[in-house]
This record gives sequence, C-alpha cells and structure tokens, in this order.
Amino acid sequence: MKPIVVDAMGGDNAPSVVIEGVRQALASGIPVELVGDPSLVTDCDDIALHASSEVIEMAEEPSRAVRTKKDSSIVRAAERVRDGHASAMVSAGNTGAVAAAALLRMKRIKGVSRPAIATTLPVPGRPPKILLDSGAMVDCQPDWLHQFARMGSVFTQVRYEIEAPRVGLVSIGEEAEKGNQLVKDTHRLLADDQTINFIGNVEGRDVLSGEVDVLVADGFTGNVILKTLEGTVQFLVGEIVSALSAQDAAAVGPEALGHLAPIASELNPDAVGGAMLLGVNGVAIISHGSAGATAILNACRVAKDMVERDLVAELSGAVAV
Amino acid sequence: MKPIVVDAMGGDNAPSVVIEGVRQALASGIPVELVGDPSLVTDCDDIALHASSEVIEMAEEPSRAVRTKKDSSIVRAAERVRDGHASAMVSAGNTGAVAAAALLRMKRIKGVSRPAIATTLPVPGRPPKILLDSGAMVDCQPDWLHQFARMGSVFTQVRYEIEAPRVGLVSIGEEAEKGNQLVKDTHRLLADDQTINFIGNVEGRDVLSGEVDVLVADGFTGNVILKTLEGTVQFLVGEIVSALSAQDAAAVGPEALGHLAPIASELNPDAVGGAMLLGVNGVAIISHGSAGATAILNACRVAKDMVERDLVAELSGAVAV
Repeated sequence: MKPIVVDAMGGDNAPSVVIEGVRQALASGIPVELVGDPSLVTDCDDIALHASSEVIEMAEEPSRAVRTKKDSSIVRAAERVRDGHASAMVSAGNTGAVAAAALLRMKRIKGVSRPAIATTLPVPGRPPKILLDSGAMVDCQPDWLHQFARMGSVFTQVRYEIEAPRVGLVSIGEEAEKGNQLVKDTHRLLADDQTINFIGNVEGRDVLSGEVDVLVADGFTGNVILKTLEGTVQFLVGEIVSALSAQDAAAVGPEALGHLAPIASELNPDAVGGAMLLGVNGVAIISHGSAGATAILNACRVAKDMVERDLVAELSGAVAV
Repeated sequence: MKPIVVDAMGGDNAPSVVIEGVRQALASGIPVELVGDPSLVTDCDDIALHASSEVIEMAEEPSRAVRTKKDSSIVRAAERVRDGHASAMVSAGNTGAVAAAALLRMKRIKGVSRPAIATTLPVPGRPPKILLDSGAMVDCQPDWLHQFARMGSVFTQVRYEIEAPRVGLVSIGEEAEKGNQLVKDTHRLLADDQTINFIGNVEGRDVLSGEVDVLVADGFTGNVILKTLEGTVQFLVGEIVSALSAQDAAAVGPEALGHLAPIASELNPDAVGGAMLLGVNGVAIISHGSAGATAILNACRVAKDMVERDLVAELSGAVAV
C-alpha cells in the first residue's frame, strides 16, 4: 500500500513526539511518511519527509487558515491523499483545519451532504462507543444527522466488527417527542431507516454506560459531550490521585492507586489513536492535540486498517442506499 | 413566613421519602405543608396536607399533563404559591411538569421571555457552579440566553453570595467566533452587557474545573451536559468501588474507599437540594427524581432562604435593566 502521510507539525508536542510515533509505526511494518518544515523536522533521515513551509496553529480559525496557508503541513498532507501519493493522512493538529483541508482537497464522497468526525470513546471493560459528529458541523440539518447515523453505523461495523451497531440519537429523554426540533425531526428519519439498527433516543448518562454503540449528535452537542466527558474524567482522576497521595493515606495509597491504574489506562484516549473524519474521499485521522507517540502509532495502525478494509467504499455504499 | 408547599407525590420514592424530608424540615423550624393524595399520604397527621387526586408521572409529556391533570399535586402546589397560601414550592416530580405548572400558574416575572432551570453542580473542595438552562427551554433564541445569563448571575449572588459571578457561555472553543449560530449571536449580546461579569466562552471541560461560576446554555445543551456529567461520575465511582472491592485489593480497598468517600459525598446532588426555576413569579425548586429525605430537607432550606432574600424581586430587577 501507499504510505500513510503524517503531519509532523501537528499537536502540542510536535514534531518530536510525532517523529517518535512514526518511527514506531515504521518499526511495526506500517509504511509511513512525514510532511513538515525541514528546518524543524530534523534528525530523522530514516523517514521520508515532504517539505511544507507553513504551520496552522491550534487556535487558528480553520477554514481561513486552510484557505490562506496553502503550503501548510495539514493542507499538503490532504493533497498527498487526493493525488494518490498517500493512502491516508494522520494529524494531531487543529481539528477543524484537518477537517476543512480534507473536505476541500479530497472532496466529499458522492452523496454525502456533510462530513462528520467520529470519536471513539473508550469504556473500561467494555467495547468502546462511537460519538459523531464530535465537532465538524455545528449547525446541522436532520438529513445530515441521518447520514451521520448511517456513516457511524458502517464505520463501527468496519472498525470494531460489531455486526448491527445499536445507533442512538442523543437527546434529553428516551421518548421520541423529547428533544429540540432538530432531534425530533431526525428521530423520524432514523426510525424509518431500515439500513440501521436505530434504538431510539439516548441521554448524556448513556455516553459511557448505555446499551448503545453509536451516539449521533450535531457537532456542537457532540463536542460539548466529548469535552464534558474528558473534563469530568480528568477532574475525578486528579481528585482521586490527590486523596490517595495525601499523607493520611500513605499506608494504602500507592497500592490502591495501582489497583485503579487499569481503569485510567483504559480511559486514555491515546489507546484509540484518534478520531476519524467520515464522508470525505479518503481516510483522515485526527489525533488529540496532546497525543503521545503511542497515539500516533495507533492512529497509523487504524489508518492502515481502514485503507485495507476500504472504509471509503463502505461509507459510499451506505449513503447511496 | 407562609409555609413551603412540598409535592408529596413527586420522585421515585414518594411519598415516604418526601414525608421523611418534610418532617426533618419541620423539626429544623421551617414551615412546610404537603399536597398529595390523602389515600396514599398516610401516617403524617403531624403535617398539614392539602388534598389532590391526580399524579403526574415521571415519563408524561409535561405540558399535556399539566393541562389535563388539573388536580395533580404539582399543579395544586403551584396554585398555592400563586394564591399566596404558600411562599414557595418544592417537588421531586417530573421536571418539565413542575416548570410548566409554575410557568402557567405563577406566570412569568414581568420582562422575562422564558424561564430557565438553574442547576447547582457541586464541585469537591470548591464553590459550586451554576448551570442554566438545564432543560426548561430546548430551542432557544439569543435574547433568552441573554436573560438566562442575567438571571443566573443574580441567582448566584443571592444564593451563594458570590459578588460578581463569572458568567461563561458554553461553546466548543474559547474564541468568540467558535460555536453554533445561537452561541455566536448570544456571545455578542453578553459581551455588550455591563450588568454581568461575562468572561467569554467556556467548554465542556470547564464544567467542573473551569474558572467560571455560571454556565449559560440552551436547555438541550445544558441537559446533555448535566446528564453526561452525572453519568460519567456514576460510571467512574462504580468502576472505582468495584476495583477496590475486588479480592486482590482486600488489603487496602476498605481503607482506600474511606479516603475517597469525601469526594463522592461532595459530588452527591442531594446536598444541594434541587434545581431552581428562574423567571417565574415565585420560588420553585425541582429536586432530583431520586432525591432522598436529605435532598427534600435541603430543598426546603434553600426555598426558605430564597423567599427571605426575595429572589424573585432580585431577578425582576435584573431583567428590567
């Protein structure tokens, strides 16, 4: 297969952590190349590097940045996929910019109204859940959410080999009539769709523990869910570590923390590698800005897997029904 | 002061738990009365009971239920406040129905476009945060959110004696241009309002740990945040208890859980008593459906406090500016 192009400039710890992750990917037999600024991406003569001179910063307005920084690593990476030089792209950079660059350069899959970002939510001791859209499209229409449901369902089948993923629509009550207008209108579309296993509305409390595989929401709601979840987990982990590290817990703290470590490690987003942009003509993975080398490695693994299983063709088939 | 009327039929454990909570409130010197079905509310001759024959169930569609069940405990409670027989109402019943009954019977404060539910989010070791709207109004307009910000600010001052509460608008990025259309339009209104201490957009990750006191959102987003937060806390607490109760943790588990208990107890929503409906002509507190006796007691305490501090007049002044 063609190499996976990785954005060397993306993420809080770029390029060093990205290079480290790419090196691990190469060592495990995944063909990978980098795109980035040669004056900053150094000490990696063992990795193919394609030069780009600009960097889109994390806080930049995505579409403006993509329009003006034509020689940025994110835009160049998307172009390498578009032009058939690379089979997939991975970036830990500005999420919106990756989505915009992939959309503008690779274009949409025929029939797709809008792309969506599918984020894997790891759940300790259970299969993960897929949340989409987690931030690509903030103001949505019912038929877009309908496509998100189909694409999320197919992605979950291909990526996690779950046969008929249970698709839930995020709302504020289980009943069909609960929710805002967008959700009520979307509910009817999903209920009538025989190609997905729609189980009805789900609530915020189902995000981790619910009997559901795919959570469908507009990008605003999805992003708020994701950040609330991350923030709550981080806050609680901090409180727990602090309580068990305090002097009065010295006798049991270290061992207790050892028993809790597996939970924290299963919740670590690095393990899933990144979020998948669904609906564009190519495989694009967006890793967390704070991604470590393991996250980059895992993102490359997932990218390879999705190329080999031809995710794009599967998605194309799902929206064409 | 006039008694606080408590809905004896509201909540998962009604009426027994409600009666127990009311008895504790009476014992602590708070004037309280009950409204409910005399055939079910028994063994409480020591408490004034006003008869109602109907019950609005938790899953009923709120406005329809309020329209058709005119002799329900929730509607009767709201009427007792409207008619001046009671100074405030407390219910652990159907949230939407309490909001609808209070709105229809007590009417809005002059100048208020829509009421909002303000929920107190307890944060271990820190002052709580106020989230509004947490579910009263799911499809909102910018000027409604603007009023929510003002009402939330005043409520936080009156209830928690925080002088210039930091008001944040829930979005998906800190920058003013991030968010959906509703948020972008609301941002401009809040930024121009000199009567509140608007600190800009906040994200889901700030819900527990951010430097913000009042979180403003439409009722759909607010409810999703609340449920995601509750679900995540519950899930993690369950995982932690299970890991520390396992056989291999027997040597340290019980003591470690003892060190963690204060965190769990500070996160317990029962401690805050309930959510406050802001914008109606009266004090109305909505307790969690799973409220225990302590939650009912605390709700009565808060109700008394808000009546004595004349919250309604304060809110009226804030929206009239």
